[in-house]
Amino acid sequence: MQRLTFIILCLLTFLVGFVHAQELPSWNETTVKQAILDYVAAVTTPGSADFVPQPERLAVFDNDGTFICERPDYPSSLFQAGLVRSFIADGTIDGTKMPFKAWNTFDKDALKKYGWKEAYQEMNAAFGGMPVTAYRDSARAFMDRYRHPRYRVPLARLYYAPMRELAALLNEHGFQLWVVTGSEQDFMRSFLEDATGVPPEHVIGSWTPAVSTQEGKEIRMVRGTVQVYNGHQAKPGNIETRIGRRPIFVVGNSDNDQPMCRYAVTGMRLGLALWVHHDDSEREYKYDRGTSDMADLVKEKDNAWRISIAKDWKRVFQNGVLDVKSE
Amino acid sequence: MQRLTFIILCLLTFLVGFVHAQELPSWNETTVKQAILDYVAAVTTPGSADFVPQPERLAVFDNDGTFICERPDYPSSLFQAGLVRSFIADGTIDGTKMPFKAWNTFDKDALKKYGWKEAYQEMNAAFGGMPVTAYRDSARAFMDRYRHPRYRVPLARLYYAPMRELAALLNEHGFQLWVVTGSEQDFMRSFLEDATGVPPEHVIGSWTPAVSTQEGKEIRMVRGTVQVYNGHQAKPGNIETRIGRRPIFVVGNSDNDQPMCRYAVTGMRLGLALWVHHDDSEREYKYDRGTSDMADLVKEKDNAWRISIAKDWKRVFQNGVLDVKSE
Repeated sequence: MQRLTFIILCLLTFLVGFVHAQELPSWNETTVKQAILDYVAAVTTPGSADFVPQPERLAVFDNDGTFICERPDYPSSLFQAGLVRSFIADGTIDGTKMPFKAWNTFDKDALKKYGWKEAYQEMNAAFGGMPVTAYRDSARAFMDRYRHPRYRVPLARLYYAPMRELAALLNEHGFQLWVVTGSEQDFMRSFLEDATGVPPEHVIGSWTPAVSTQEGKEIRMVRGTVQVYNGHQAKPGNIETRIGRRPIFVVGNSDNDQPMCRYAVTGMRLGLALWVHHDDSEREYKYDRGTSDMADLVKEKDNAWRISIAKDWKRVFQNGVLDVKSE
Repeated sequence: MQRLTFIILCLLTFLVGFVHAQELPSWNETTVKQAILDYVAAVTTPGSADFVPQPERLAVFDNDGTFICERPDYPSSLFQAGLVRSFIADGTIDGTKMPFKAWNTFDKDALKKYGWKEAYQEMNAAFGGMPVTAYRDSARAFMDRYRHPRYRVPLARLYYAPMRELAALLNEHGFQLWVVTGSEQDFMRSFLEDATGVPPEHVIGSWTPAVSTQEGKEIRMVRGTVQVYNGHQAKPGNIETRIGRRPIFVVGNSDNDQPMCRYAVTGMRLGLALWVHHDDSEREYKYDRGTSDMADLVKEKDNAWRISIAKDWKRVFQNGVLDVKSE
C-alpha cells in the first residue's frame, strides 16, 4: 500500500512537471516560472480567493529590453536617426545644426551632451507635417531592412522567446496585453502586430499627437510637433489616461519601469511585477546594475520577481536566431 | 411549376423579412436599416469583395445625441457643474468668481458669454489634484442619483434602444466598438461599461491627463490641470493618436462628428457613416437644422446615411422608459 502511494506520488510529480514543461517551454523550471504559473492560476481559476474577472485582466509589457533586445541601440532611435538622415539628404533638415548633426552620425555622446530630452523633442518636431501613413511605412521598411549587428537578423526576430510565450499564456487566460514603452508610438505600431500579435490600439509609446485637417473632401492626417514623453512616472499616468484601468501584471527591465510595476502590485487586486535582469553576456548582453529601484521593489514585495536571463531562460530567441556564444 | 416557383419566392421573401425583423428589432424596415445590414454583410462575409479582416473592424459611436439622449443638457456638464457646487460648498472654489459663478447656477447664457472653451478648461483645471478614483466615484454616484427631468429615470437608461442593438450587432460580427465623445472621459468611464458594455479602454473623451506620483511606497494618481479637447477635427486626430486605425463605421449626430464620419468613408476599406437626425419631438426632441456639414456628407456619399428618429426607429428607449408623447 505504501509502495502504491509512492508510485502514485511519483506519477503525479511527473505529470505536474510534464504539464509545466509544456507551458512556457523556453523557461527553465525555476521559482520564477513557478511564480508566474501560480499567479495566473490564482487570478483566473473561478472560485479562487484572488480571482480577477476577465475584463480587469490587464497585462502590460515594456518593450525595449523587456520584450525585445535593446542593445546596442533602441530600434526606435535607430529608425528616427535614419529618417533624419533622409530629411538632411533631401534638404528638409539642416544637417549642420544640432541636434540633427549628432542624429545624422548617431553620435550618442554629443546627443547626451546636448540633452536627450531636447534632442528627441526637436527631432520629433522636425517630422511635424509628415503624413502618418508615410511615417509608418518608412518605419516598417526600416524594420524589414535593418539587420542587428550581432545576430544578423531583422530586429523583429529579436523579440524574446520566453516573453512571446508569456504573452501567449496570458492571452489564453483572458488577459488583454498592452505594450507601454518609451519608444516612439507610430514606429512601434508599424510592425508590432505582425511581430507579436499586439495590435496598434494596444500600444502606448512616447507619442506625437496626430493632426487632422480637412482639405476639400478629404481628411488629411499628419504628425504634429509636440512629443508626449512616456517613461518612468509618465507610464502609470499614461496607462490611466489611455486605458483607464490599473494593470495587474507588469513586466519591465529598468528603473524607468519601476513606477508601473509598483502600480500593479499596490492595487486592490493581486498583482504581479516582473523585472527582466540582463545578466547573460554569452547569449545576450550583460548591463544591469545590481542595485536599483527595481531591485528594491523585488526585495519589498512577495509578488515582485527578478528574472535572470542566464538562469531563468532556457533559450533567449527563436525563429532561427542562433544563441551566439560570444560577441 | 410556375406556381411552385412563386410559392418558394414568397417563402424566401417571408424568411428574409423575418430574419431582418429579428435583427435590429427596434428599427423600422426602412432603407437605412437595410443599408446597415447590407454593409455589415458586405464587410464580414468571407469571400465578399468588400471583406474586412476582423482586426480592422473598428466602429466608433459619438455619445451625446448619438448613443444617449443629450437634451436638455449634456450629462457630463451636469455632473461637472454639480462637482463645482460641492467644491464651492467646502470652500475649495470661490463661487463668486467666473466661470464658477455661472457653473454654480448652470447659467448657460453666462457661460456662453464667458466662452464655453475657457469655461470648461478653467473648470477642469480647478479639479486638478483630485484623485482619479474619487472623481470617478463621484461621477458614478451622480449617474445613479440624477433623474432626467422629462423621462424621470437615471440617465444611463436613456441610451437609445436602436443604438444598443446596433452596438450588439457589430459586436457579434467581430467589430470592436469605441465611444469618441466631447464629454469628459473619466465621467464616461465611470458608468459606460455597466450601461452599454463599452469598456473604459474604449472611451476617448475630452480628457485631462492623469498625473502619477510616488509617495513612499505607493503610487498616487490624480487629475492634472490641462484639458485635451475632443471635438470636430480633434476627433479623427485623437482616433489616430489613441487607436492608430482608421474606423470603417462611424455614427454621429452633429457637425462636430462630420470629420470622423468623413474619415470613415474616405479610406481604402468600404466604410459606413450614419447621422442621427433629431426630428421627433413626440418621443424625444426636435432640434436639428435641415442643412449642415453632415447633410452635405449624406448627399455626397452613397455610404453615408441620415437616420430619422421619427421614421427609422420603431422605439427610442427601452428598460421601461415610456415613450412620452409630449414634453
